[in-house]
Amino acid sequence: MSAPQPKNYAFGMIGLGTMGRNLLLNMADHDFSVAGYDKDTSKIPLLHKEADEDGVKNVEGFSDLGAFVQSLAKPRVVMMLVPAGKIVDSVIAEITPLLDKGDMLIDGGNSYFLDTTRRATELEVKGLHFFGMGISGGEEGARRGPSMMPGGDPEAYKRMQPVLEAVAAKVGGEPCVTYIGPGASGHFVKMVHNGIEYGIMQLLAETYDVMKNGLGMSNEAMQQVYAKWNEGRLQSFLVDITKDIFAYIAPDTDHLLLDDIKDEARSKGTGKWTSQIAMDLQVPLSLIDEAVAMRDLSKYKALREEMEKAYGARPTPSQDEQEQLAELEQAMYFSMIIAYAQGMHMLARASEEYVFNLNLADIAKIWRGGCIIRSEFLNTIYNAYQQQPDLAHLLLDSDVRQQVQDAVAGARAVVARTATAGIGVPALAASLSYFDTLRTGRMPSNLIQAQRDYFGAHTYELIGKEGVFHTQWTASHEEAENKQDTHRGTGTENETPVTPNK
Amino acid sequence: MSAPQPKNYAFGMIGLGTMGRNLLLNMADHDFSVAGYDKDTSKIPLLHKEADEDGVKNVEGFSDLGAFVQSLAKPRVVMMLVPAGKIVDSVIAEITPLLDKGDMLIDGGNSYFLDTTRRATELEVKGLHFFGMGISGGEEGARRGPSMMPGGDPEAYKRMQPVLEAVAAKVGGEPCVTYIGPGASGHFVKMVHNGIEYGIMQLLAETYDVMKNGLGMSNEAMQQVYAKWNEGRLQSFLVDITKDIFAYIAPDTDHLLLDDIKDEARSKGTGKWTSQIAMDLQVPLSLIDEAVAMRDLSKYKALREEMEKAYGARPTPSQDEQEQLAELEQAMYFSMIIAYAQGMHMLARASEEYVFNLNLADIAKIWRGGCIIRSEFLNTIYNAYQQQPDLAHLLLDSDVRQQVQDAVAGARAVVARTATAGIGVPALAASLSYFDTLRTGRMPSNLIQAQRDYFGAHTYELIGKEGVFHTQWTASHEEAENKQDTHRGTGTENETPVTPNK
Repeated sequence: MSAPQPKNYAFGMIGLGTMGRNLLLNMADHDFSVAGYDKDTSKIPLLHKEADEDGVKNVEGFSDLGAFVQSLAKPRVVMMLVPAGKIVDSVIAEITPLLDKGDMLIDGGNSYFLDTTRRATELEVKGLHFFGMGISGGEEGARRGPSMMPGGDPEAYKRMQPVLEAVAAKVGGEPCVTYIGPGASGHFVKMVHNGIEYGIMQLLAETYDVMKNGLGMSNEAMQQVYAKWNEGRLQSFLVDITKDIFAYIAPDTDHLLLDDIKDEARSKGTGKWTSQIAMDLQVPLSLIDEAVAMRDLSKYKALREEMEKAYGARPTPSQDEQEQLAELEQAMYFSMIIAYAQGMHMLARASEEYVFNLNLADIAKIWRGGCIIRSEFLNTIYNAYQQQPDLAHLLLDSDVRQQVQDAVAGARAVVARTATAGIGVPALAASLSYFDTLRTGRMPSNLIQAQRDYFGAHTYELIGKEGVFHTQWTASHEEAENKQDTHRGTGTENETPVTPNK
Repeated sequence: MSAPQPKNYAFGMIGLGTMGRNLLLNMADHDFSVAGYDKDTSKIPLLHKEADEDGVKNVEGFSDLGAFVQSLAKPRVVMMLVPAGKIVDSVIAEITPLLDKGDMLIDGGNSYFLDTTRRATELEVKGLHFFGMGISGGEEGARRGPSMMPGGDPEAYKRMQPVLEAVAAKVGGEPCVTYIGPGASGHFVKMVHNGIEYGIMQLLAETYDVMKNGLGMSNEAMQQVYAKWNEGRLQSFLVDITKDIFAYIAPDTDHLLLDDIKDEARSKGTGKWTSQIAMDLQVPLSLIDEAVAMRDLSKYKALREEMEKAYGARPTPSQDEQEQLAELEQAMYFSMIIAYAQGMHMLARASEEYVFNLNLADIAKIWRGGCIIRSEFLNTIYNAYQQQPDLAHLLLDSDVRQQVQDAVAGARAVVARTATAGIGVPALAASLSYFDTLRTGRMPSNLIQAQRDYFGAHTYELIGKEGVFHTQWTASHEEAENKQDTHRGTGTENETPVTPNK
């Protein structure tokens, strides 16, 4: 390679995979001069070739890190688009000695948000601004307009804002990017985005199963259903691509490529993290939990085949197809609302816990374009939080409530029918269970409290009375005792003091 | 305190909460001389008082750690029963300088298994044997016979074996304790035990809800149902105590104490860990996930009350009570089997991943007595794994299969009816969805693979063909391309190389 000429590039990109190259070309499209770096020298001519093909100027590729850094205008703005994990740390270790105070480093990958918190702290000490930014939209989004979720120093964001707003997807002329919040909030919000994505994808897979095995429908008929759904209230990127997938014939065959694809779904971790962290935050995220569990179950192919032999194949009832399809559309819509609602609930809770100060309306707004979970319904979410920033739960918004009440009958019918017929719809069923439990002022959890106190002296709380109580449940009620005086305690020394229970 | 006389006590206990005192008294019952230590001086006279009350000898309490350690026969066997977390580390830091090489330290609490792995490594360097031991059975179990799950150095276990076998619960004359495996395997197995416990408790809560709100039954009628269940195939500790709870009148009232208890269930972490680690291990644990989510949801009391106002109370259908109760018993039995089956599946997977070399038959065997999840059905599990140590999944055992096939109709009826009626049964529904998906040789997950490849170029696998493939789904099928040659890659550099798809 000949040494490239130093130049004041406005933006630098480390990692020239498809996402990195496409985002650079997108920036250059909008008249920003940009430089890219990749250790892999083969990526440099690829970048130049694609730039030429697309008629894009002001793009330079480097395979020498020092020359790349020197080519950037100061204070520098450098984004990393490399695989999440240790590689991010090693890139940071390589580049930080070459940067100057005040430079900005952006991690545009799907990093675990606690890694981002750690890195931000480490780099702050060195006088660098670190940004964790979630980017959604895949390759096409990166090239034509992604949805971006940047979190970090708000002052530093102002420097990035022009280029990010220029390259972002637009909805109604407004860019699908906004300052999310401090620290790791950008990566956190992107993680929850991906959790919702897992949920909706699982729901669509279940509707496929219901139509194929419950109603015995052909691929052509299912393609028409998804196409129709995508013209109605279910309009969304994921339904849209599902419609396309049901139209794609395998090369040199007369059948869908879909039918040749293994039913073992892989995953990269963000859905799992969403569920695991929701449990730490004590937010019920049951639909997304099921989506994660079903990706895992899909990998046990041999076990499933053995189970099918042991328990017999599923029956195929097929009647009232039109009525059942109307119900299925309702079920899909109802459950999609639950997927978004659970995700928004998690964001609200995380905003308190981590002091992210999230603006849920803005987040819904930037998700309306560019990203994988973009949908018509995000407009409703946006309106709900814009009108009521402190809305306790999406389902309490009056517009959403109307839509839920209209659609829930279909969800009930589909869950009841599939339970009877023997078709598993874990995410559809979980969304209905969640709804029916969430709308219960009085849950049966008092029994769980009583059981825990019975076997572990974990104490319980009483309605309308302060304090925690313990009972010797096997004693007759006359012998119920004040635990502090005579009971032998709880076995752990950190229990709340127990007050008398009579 | 006067300085206690040095004596060769066979066993030492750190932490004289109820569990610690009860386990010590249990050992002394079996003619082991034992010493206890607690920083809290008030615990020492309590220990002596209870020993006197119970006519137990050979028990000495210490509030001086040095004197306690000196009083023990060498090599020493010392158990800690203190709250999990940092307290365990600080006790270890205090006591290790006082111990000699070859002494044994046992953590009998519910420690996170990765903490146990770390501690075992740290203490091995110092020449100490560290054991992580799960203990189940609550206070009563500790006093009269718990189920214990010790993991660590097998040679060191031999020293502990006599006292542990003496104090353990007995089933058919056999003690409910066995060497579980190396490292943190004891705490891991106890964690999964607790996950199953969460699952079964949630199922029982749901049956309560179905009877109360679905069938409008009285507490007396429900008490009779649980009592009857406990005499049949559902016989188990948890159904047994549930029956008792439904008989316990609140002091100075004419109604059940249960009705006064808040419906906000608390938790201490082991159920959550089970779900989170199952996700790391990629084992679907959906029923237990739901139990965790519903404990979390129970805490959102104000939100649930608001939701009830917004969405209206649930209807109360009440007909064919006897038939519906028979179905509910089937549903409970079916789902209880699923709870155990998911837990055993996780243990099998963990045994591979962490090289625990678990004996699943032995684990089922020691769970039959003493512990919270003891049940008649554990005999069936024990037999299944004893006959087939490499059984891929509990549901593939022929006895279990027969019972599942007999009971699944009830599960279908309950899930279908509650879905229609508007009663949430998240764990019952999750167990049915799990079963119906697990017994599906072909899941709809091929759609998820196609979607991931469509938007993220994540590639997919084909039935009967090696390699991974990528398609430009929006192109017409004639243009489907070999990704390596002409496609722009995946955006991450760690993808499996892509082979041609035609």
